[in-house]
Amino acid sequence: MTDSTPKLPGLLARRTRGMTLEAPFYTDPAIHHADLDLIFARHWIFVGVEPEIAEPGDVMSVDIGNHAVLVARDDDMELRAFHNVCRHRGARLIEARHDSVGNIVCPYHQWTYGLDGALRHAGCMPRDFQAERHGLRHVHVRSLEGLIFVCLAEEAPDDFEDMARIVGPYIAPHGITRCKVAHTEDIVEPGNWKLTMENNRECYHCSAAHPELTRSIFAEGFGFAPVGAAAEAQAARFQAMIGDLHARCQLRGIPSGEIEHLADRITGFRTERLPLEDAGESETLDTRVACKKLLGDLSETRLGALSFWTQPNSWHHFMSDHIVTFAVFPLTPETALLRTTWLVHQDAVEGVDYDLSNLTAVWHATNAQDSALVGKAADGVRTSGYRPGPYSADTEGLVEKFCAWYIDRMQAGLAG
Amino acid sequence: MTDSTPKLPGLLARRTRGMTLEAPFYTDPAIHHADLDLIFARHWIFVGVEPEIAEPGDVMSVDIGNHAVLVARDDDMELRAFHNVCRHRGARLIEARHDSVGNIVCPYHQWTYGLDGALRHAGCMPRDFQAERHGLRHVHVRSLEGLIFVCLAEEAPDDFEDMARIVGPYIAPHGITRCKVAHTEDIVEPGNWKLTMENNRECYHCSAAHPELTRSIFAEGFGFAPVGAAAEAQAARFQAMIGDLHARCQLRGIPSGEIEHLADRITGFRTERLPLEDAGESETLDTRVACKKLLGDLSETRLGALSFWTQPNSWHHFMSDHIVTFAVFPLTPETALLRTTWLVHQDAVEGVDYDLSNLTAVWHATNAQDSALVGKAADGVRTSGYRPGPYSADTEGLVEKFCAWYIDRMQAGLAG
Amino acid sequence: MTDSTPKLPGLLARRTRGMTLEAPFYTDPAIHHADLDLIFARHWIFVGVEPEIAEPGDVMSVDIGNHAVLVARDDDMELRAFHNVCRHRGARLIEARHDSVGNIVCPYHQWTYGLDGALRHAGCMPRDFQAERHGLRHVHVRSLEGLIFVCLAEEAPDDFEDMARIVGPYIAPHGITRCKVAHTEDIVEPGNWKLTMENNRECYHCSAAHPELTRSIFAEGFGFAPVGAAAEAQAARFQAMIGDLHARCQLRGIPSGEIEHLADRITGFRTERLPLEDAGESETLDTRVACKKLLGDLSETRLGALSFWTQPNSWHHFMSDHIVTFAVFPLTPETALLRTTWLVHQDAVEGVDYDLSNLTAVWHATNAQDSALVGKAADGVRTSGYRPGPYSADTEGLVEKFCAWYIDRMQAGLAG
Repeated sequence: MTDSTPKLPGLLARRTRGMTLEAPFYTDPAIHHADLDLIFARHWIFVGVEPEIAEPGDVMSVDIGNHAVLVARDDDMELRAFHNVCRHRGARLIEARHDSVGNIVCPYHQWTYGLDGALRHAGCMPRDFQAERHGLRHVHVRSLEGLIFVCLAEEAPDDFEDMARIVGPYIAPHGITRCKVAHTEDIVEPGNWKLTMENNRECYHCSAAHPELTRSIFAEGFGFAPVGAAAEAQAARFQAMIGDLHARCQLRGIPSGEIEHLADRITGFRTERLPLEDAGESETLDTRVACKKLLGDLSETRLGALSFWTQPNSWHHFMSDHIVTFAVFPLTPETALLRTTWLVHQDAVEGVDYDLSNLTAVWHATNAQDSALVGKAADGVRTSGYRPGPYSADTEGLVEKFCAWYIDRMQAGLAG
Repeated sequence: MTDSTPKLPGLLARRTRGMTLEAPFYTDPAIHHADLDLIFARHWIFVGVEPEIAEPGDVMSVDIGNHAVLVARDDDMELRAFHNVCRHRGARLIEARHDSVGNIVCPYHQWTYGLDGALRHAGCMPRDFQAERHGLRHVHVRSLEGLIFVCLAEEAPDDFEDMARIVGPYIAPHGITRCKVAHTEDIVEPGNWKLTMENNRECYHCSAAHPELTRSIFAEGFGFAPVGAAAEAQAARFQAMIGDLHARCQLRGIPSGEIEHLADRITGFRTERLPLEDAGESETLDTRVACKKLLGDLSETRLGALSFWTQPNSWHHFMSDHIVTFAVFPLTPETALLRTTWLVHQDAVEGVDYDLSNLTAVWHATNAQDSALVGKAADGVRTSGYRPGPYSADTEGLVEKFCAWYIDRMQAGLAG
Repeated sequence: MTDSTPKLPGLLARRTRGMTLEAPFYTDPAIHHADLDLIFARHWIFVGVEPEIAEPGDVMSVDIGNHAVLVARDDDMELRAFHNVCRHRGARLIEARHDSVGNIVCPYHQWTYGLDGALRHAGCMPRDFQAERHGLRHVHVRSLEGLIFVCLAEEAPDDFEDMARIVGPYIAPHGITRCKVAHTEDIVEPGNWKLTMENNRECYHCSAAHPELTRSIFAEGFGFAPVGAAAEAQAARFQAMIGDLHARCQLRGIPSGEIEHLADRITGFRTERLPLEDAGESETLDTRVACKKLLGDLSETRLGALSFWTQPNSWHHFMSDHIVTFAVFPLTPETALLRTTWLVHQDAVEGVDYDLSNLTAVWHATNAQDSALVGKAADGVRTSGYRPGPYSADTEGLVEKFCAWYIDRMQAGLAG
């Protein structure tokens, strides 16, 4: 009634580099829907890992805001993805997150689709009914060494293969397809999905917020750049450790150097292998491997942690013994789902090769801490007193790259 | 902000016959409000049965979306209906669903209205206060052989009497006004009210979804038309049973043939007496009467089930021993209230003449199954992947008539 | 889609004096936001009392709709108020309602502000970072003899001092700053904040709704004017009691006469000292003081109750032994927070000088009764049948003044 809310194009155009976004980006239902349309329906979205649907007939459902997707492994072991909705009366097809089926049968009137999406049976339809025009609507799907991405656009961004070519060799040694899911955890984050992403894209808050995580990781590996004499000594030590780690990796033919394309590609990403503290083996409370059975064909425990990030919604940590993947899905303008998945070698036996609480302790605690911080930010940015504030150029440079990518892709979406 | 939602007139105009409605009809708050304004405030809405307010001073309140109505039986045994809101400060007058009162007294400042709606007392008002201008605002009310309908429009559709003239003789033998309410059940349906209505208007889903209901009813009676040799034999058997039932009814002077005006009248309706399976007596688990005391002056148990439907919000099943009525009231864009009422003869004694769990078993189970299916449909139609799908011409013809009636009445409402 | 909602300026312009407001003022999200912008961000809002932040470093947070404010007592005992949001990433600074701090430290990245709002420390920021430009954003704050008011506008209404000059002598004898908070109670009112205010601004409903409160107070003191012979006798008795009370007050130099500027000032207010029934000492179940230790330097118990109201959101009752203050904060279009605070002399000892349940019994019960009535009104005004109704000119004259003030200030806000 007194609507003076600036419209989206204006808000995008006036965004100041190096500053946090204006409040409507974190609260406005119309921008939430625009995010779903222009970001989540047009880019490659990480949705899960191949071990979740290892066998023919395995299906998984994933809701990306108002986009309901089902990913299936067909009888030829190919991945297929579809809109998870019947072509008849629109009923949701697969309810469970994971299921195993012969065909995909609608629970309402039993319309029956093959794992290739073709409509195989529809009762009571007239003779001239064209079943071939009522197959499930396809969604693009790709696997990057076992990490499953989907794209809901008619034409998916064509730079996925290029990312896969670059990043594949980093990830491949960890053998995701020979892993099993040891644990999964869903958290409803009390803030807009971008607050969760921004929280992930810096370690400025780590020293105060994450006592468990900082036993193993160096905040410096994520852009943290403290000031002062002690800081310089620490930075030098960290650089030496990186050099040492990368040299050891090179000996084994494992790529480790930083590659960063967060803001200069449609499918933005970043990867780097980073050293860990003390024993240097894994992101655990004692910095040692949590699983005796190493991943892939690895024999060296001290490989630090391979970090792999994608825009807009994922990050992943690969150690010699286990992998942790994170996916963020918008729920409402002010909530998001954070899905965390812990993977170990498929032959590892719980209680023998690994203790589940030890495996998950660090990120279980860290997720809860981050979720609380996201809530603090959400509580503030929705108030009238909030104004965009300045990012630390060094320490929050990758947050800035997330925002820059987001603004650019939203503008491209509106233009397209 | 990127608002490209088609407006209501455009959505109505582009609706394709024989196809499900577009998603906004099931999700959009603005269409929800238009439904309340153009459908629920302008048509005859079924709200309950006379036995609910049998005595002078009995009142019932019913909320039809944002329309709060109270229906009263006055001292002359006439039905009266009013907006359930005080003319002073707007407080809700009758809170309970059923009550018995001398006058209607506002709980806020004790303004007091007679059962005729006249303001009888208002404390502290000045001498020139015109009480006669502050009576309760009237709502049209009619009883069709004991089924109570209200209309919130200033001028109610004038075809109610015609429907009553046609349908009255079908219903009258079941003697609603000599019944009592044996049980009532409110379910919050997890979808837009139209999904509940569409679910009711076909039995395509019955064989798979309703094991209890299909012990007695024939899906063929509601348009179900399977294909194949066995289907033909079954159809022939069903036609023979209809012929037998209608002949027996004719002997007793009870009308039974189909009358269908679902889409060609403002007050759309359909009725038909249909045979039941096996014992053929009632919609019970054993297909026999659930109440020893038959309704009205009936002496024959095997009268099948009289089906009576009205647009936009009701259906009713009349058997020789009991009646089940159903009313649907919108709550929010994506929820609705389904109110089910079981009636038996007023002289029937629970535990002697009928067992309540046996009486209610079939529709209690069927309602829950339908509610789950409505939820599946709602879960799908709100996703970006949903597209309108084709109705089966034979089996879902009456769903199509519901949609056609709805589109037509919405367009008439916008034009009016 | 069929949007025919009148816009705010039109609704304001067509408001009829002496009638309740139209429905959108109690339900519409856009008007709710306009209320927050034009009423709550531009006027003096009562938020609490000085004893809540008695010591240096004491802070309190208060949320006025989407306005998050923190009020602090600095090291010089001055009151300071700020937006409760960090200048870096927008995180909420003070979470608890009350806290005691050395500095104000953001929980996200530890940006640290002094109690004067200046940014004292921000890690990792570049050398050219201008800390002096990133202090907390100030909010106006004033104390009226211990009642704390804030104003979020850049320029606060300049008539606060005038109100303080007039009302201060009434309040000062009760010595708020020498009080302590004995009890506080937050109720989520089930209606728009204006329904809570309107409920407070008349006692027409008191006789039927408030058996506990009317043991001590006279509804006549709040404009109640019943008709009839008995009423005249009662009115005469009440006038005599007022005369007696005011004479006793005058002897002690305590001002007591009515001053009413509810609708003719930006900072609208009203005050009057009113007699109480029976023992005439306090708003308690037995009309006697609930606390043996009298307030300030008072020695007389029979001082009735000083009533002090402010627009838009507070009322206060001062007795010789205790004070009850009430603040209303909008939450959503159809809910509000009612915060009630009971104060006694800081030296009074619970269990010795006062019994807490006796102290709070009357207003605890009255608040619950009023909250239920607000719910009845909210239930009615959101229905389609609601139409504005007439206020009783005598008995609801101060409700009309609340509405007149509100309409005037909204129009001024839109014009400004």
